[in-house]
Amino acid sequence: MQRSTLVRLKENLELKNPILVVGLPGVGLVGKLVAEHLVDELGAEKIMEVYSPHFPPQVLVNKDCTVRPVSNAIYLGKAKENDVLFLVGDHQSTTTQGHYELCSLYLDIAEELGVLRIYTLGGYPTGKLTYEETVLGVANNTDLIEEIKAYGVEFRESEPSGGIVGASGLLVAFSKMRGIDAACLMGMTPGYLMDPKSAQSLLKVICKLFDIEVNTESLEKKAEEMESILEKLKEKEEQQIQEIKPSEEDLRYIG
Amino acid sequence: MQRSTLVRLKENLELKNPILVVGLPGVGLVGKLVAEHLVDELGAEKIMEVYSPHFPPQVLVNKDCTVRPVSNAIYLGKAKENDVLFLVGDHQSTTTQGHYELCSLYLDIAEELGVLRIYTLGGYPTGKLTYEETVLGVANNTDLIEEIKAYGVEFRESEPSGGIVGASGLLVAFSKMRGIDAACLMGMTPGYLMDPKSAQSLLKVICKLFDIEVNTESLEKKAEEMESILEKLKEKEEQQIQEIKPSEEDLRYIG
Amino acid sequence: MQRSTLVRLKENLELKNPILVVGLPGVGLVGKLVAEHLVDELGAEKIMEVYSPHFPPQVLVNKDCTVRPVSNAIYLGKAKENDVLFLVGDHQSTTTQGHYELCSLYLDIAEELGVLRIYTLGGYPTGKLTYEETVLGVANNTDLIEEIKAYGVEFRESEPSGGIVGASGLLVAFSKMRGIDAACLMGMTPGYLMDPKSAQSLLKVICKLFDIEVNTESLEKKAEEMESILEKLKEKEEQQIQEIKPSEEDLRYIG
Amino acid sequence: MQRSTLVRLKENLELKNPILVVGLPGVGLVGKLVAEHLVDELGAEKIMEVYSPHFPPQVLVNKDCTVRPVSNAIYLGKAKENDVLFLVGDHQSTTTQGHYELCSLYLDIAEELGVLRIYTLGGYPTGKLTYEETVLGVANNTDLIEEIKAYGVEFRESEPSGGIVGASGLLVAFSKMRGIDAACLMGMTPGYLMDPKSAQSLLKVICKLFDIEVNTESLEKKAEEMESILEKLKEKEEQQIQEIKPSEEDLRYIG
Repeated sequence: MQRSTLVRLKENLELKNPILVVGLPGVGLVGKLVAEHLVDELGAEKIMEVYSPHFPPQVLVNKDCTVRPVSNAIYLGKAKENDVLFLVGDHQSTTTQGHYELCSLYLDIAEELGVLRIYTLGGYPTGKLTYEETVLGVANNTDLIEEIKAYGVEFRESEPSGGIVGASGLLVAFSKMRGIDAACLMGMTPGYLMDPKSAQSLLKVICKLFDIEVNTESLEKKAEEMESILEKLKEKEEQQIQEIKPSEEDLRYIG
Repeated sequence: MQRSTLVRLKENLELKNPILVVGLPGVGLVGKLVAEHLVDELGAEKIMEVYSPHFPPQVLVNKDCTVRPVSNAIYLGKAKENDVLFLVGDHQSTTTQGHYELCSLYLDIAEELGVLRIYTLGGYPTGKLTYEETVLGVANNTDLIEEIKAYGVEFRESEPSGGIVGASGLLVAFSKMRGIDAACLMGMTPGYLMDPKSAQSLLKVICKLFDIEVNTESLEKKAEEMESILEKLKEKEEQQIQEIKPSEEDLRYIG
Repeated sequence: MQRSTLVRLKENLELKNPILVVGLPGVGLVGKLVAEHLVDELGAEKIMEVYSPHFPPQVLVNKDCTVRPVSNAIYLGKAKENDVLFLVGDHQSTTTQGHYELCSLYLDIAEELGVLRIYTLGGYPTGKLTYEETVLGVANNTDLIEEIKAYGVEFRESEPSGGIVGASGLLVAFSKMRGIDAACLMGMTPGYLMDPKSAQSLLKVICKLFDIEVNTESLEKKAEEMESILEKLKEKEEQQIQEIKPSEEDLRYIG
Repeated sequence: MQRSTLVRLKENLELKNPILVVGLPGVGLVGKLVAEHLVDELGAEKIMEVYSPHFPPQVLVNKDCTVRPVSNAIYLGKAKENDVLFLVGDHQSTTTQGHYELCSLYLDIAEELGVLRIYTLGGYPTGKLTYEETVLGVANNTDLIEEIKAYGVEFRESEPSGGIVGASGLLVAFSKMRGIDAACLMGMTPGYLMDPKSAQSLLKVICKLFDIEVNTESLEKKAEEMESILEKLKEKEEQQIQEIKPSEEDLRYIG
């Protein structure tokens, strides 16, 4: 395998107003959480698998001890007016050149399937520990920006100032050359850990965009689990600080 | 040399129920030790050599001061009902892309030779210093898992949780797309050093699978050598701890 | 995208005595500052865009929240006797091989457009904090060296002794094989930060070479900004040293 | 430039018993020093240049301020019974794959020119600071080993035990598949610095092999320079140790 390989599980697809939603692993796993949640809730069906020599040379082990290669996959679901394609996966490219090659392949697929619009989902690292409901956006044209603003997405001048690394950014920028409208929507997240809370904020926006409602129970549960993990981490940390901080007696003893 | 190169030392091979056993360098060198031991004990003959720009740019020096490039090789031996192909070698790929390219080449060879099944051999790093007899497995289908369980191989839910890196994993996962049954069998090993003891546990399972018996003397000798090396390392370490630990007198002196 | 991609925004260009000026990011951003300043001042027009899998896998965000891929671009302006092509961009190649591939592409373009001469612009890191007006040069033939000396460019035996890394050097060296005269002109710079002051020295030389005059106000303003930033950094540093340096009283206390 | 490029400066070469001597940069620069010395002393003429995207993306500056790309080159000289080709250069490949690609190119050239034998020259790092006259060898067949032994080259069982990295090793190993006799000859060297003394030992062996005598004055001069540099380094080091070691008075003062 010298180049990325596309395996088609369904032939002769005829799609109605298809939109591509991309949720690959990234900051806080926000995009991945949202896209995989929608795949589950909409009962989307896997139609394509992508393998690549740019993914880690590694296999993953399923619950039943069978193994599968690292892959990306495209699922097909329905959301009222639109057929929705979901691009999800285990990893992004591990190499610079692979990022460009894979994005080029994904845009070939989008063109072939007549995709009208692409939403790439991601996290926006704030570096702060407090949560924010905000969803930030960028897009590949100003008309689309105006349209999306109406759904509560914030657009801040020149933000993210450091640019966007990986598939979420490249797909939006390069889809312009293919004549496809595209936006990247980012949930604000501390960015250090998986962030199902930020995923919920982002999911709300997506649901508004598609005019659908989905059950968010499993995301809420994940958010609760993360919060209890964080709580325990904090306790441990405080305990350690307590242990390190010398008591007044200790200080006197040294003196 | 832009791509990996296959050198065929034998033409027109006609094999009987061929099975491929893969023992490339990895954790504890467990897989390599077992496969090379079987090559020796079964008097298997080299039939193919593989050179690759993804191997280290290095040559190895033989006892007689001739040199040879880093390579992988395929040997052909016989084990009762099966012709057995052994894939062994000096190194795995040094690059991500090379892992995928080489595995693709090995599966082309397996298909060409009509291989019915692939066993990749490896080590499972426990991170503990105590030895365990256990051999752990994963496979590319559940029927094979049921079959192999009968030979004493353990299958633990979702284990190894970190996946399997390198040829041992990739070959099992991608052989599914070629319609070839494949399993990865891993001897438990601390993982820090060459582990001929773990290799013996794994060898026992392989012998059962092929219904053969082989002399294990040389592996036992290697195991004894490693144990005496470990013994010396431990002694040294204890001595150092002794030297660092201040005696009571020292403590009093400071006081 | 496996290789770099050239997008032509204008067809059938007919140029008069075309000269290529290259100002890609490098030491002190000196070359980039000068070339982009000239693009602005001469009202040069973008005629080509270059995308490459060797650029960082990243997009940049415009003021209006639209995004664009990392790219290099060629602009066309006029300077008295010459049509001037400017090669500017966000990044140089991130890989060794990409540097060679991109330089090869740029020289193909130069040949196609009948470029007579190439000036690559860069910074020469002195490692000292004091500014120098000097502009240092190297070229791909001695006749050109003699010609350029007359414009105040210094040529020092075997300097830079460490060679020149990146496009500025490669383009000058490899243009010789294409029969194109080329020189690299370097503003002396401490090399640690963006250096609009060094850019001004280099700009002066370029203007003499093209026999043009351009407004330098914006560069002067940038230079002032950098100086005030440096001033603040120095103050902070001195403050910290002050805080660390124990006062005489402190010393007595310890004693 | 996607692949390495060969520039031929002479066409229709007809060579008499051609032998290839390879002296690329490596441990102690021993091979490079010997090969370049022979190029000078035999008045060998440059017949080919090799450029590669696997060399550093850098140009070197000549004394007269012209620049040249990093390259390897082949020179042609005469030594009694043999036309001798010298492969010398600024750098070896910076990538694993480049090493294999370049060696493949060099062996294509050797085959095309009818090369009968290849000597690759290098240094053998001893890690000790004392000099040894010994020249160590490996080869691609035992007949050649026996022949070369007569010229004072030592062959030690399985040495170098760590193998040989880079072109010196790869060319010897892979030339076997082309039916070309080849040996790697290594001067013993501490390995930390350029070692013209070890180069002299290796040069002696080469002169015997070709039955020629060459002036070694320039190498002797370089050796003297290196020794005086080493002397100064030692003095400095001793001075520093002196300064760090507290005198008895200092100790009392602290007490």
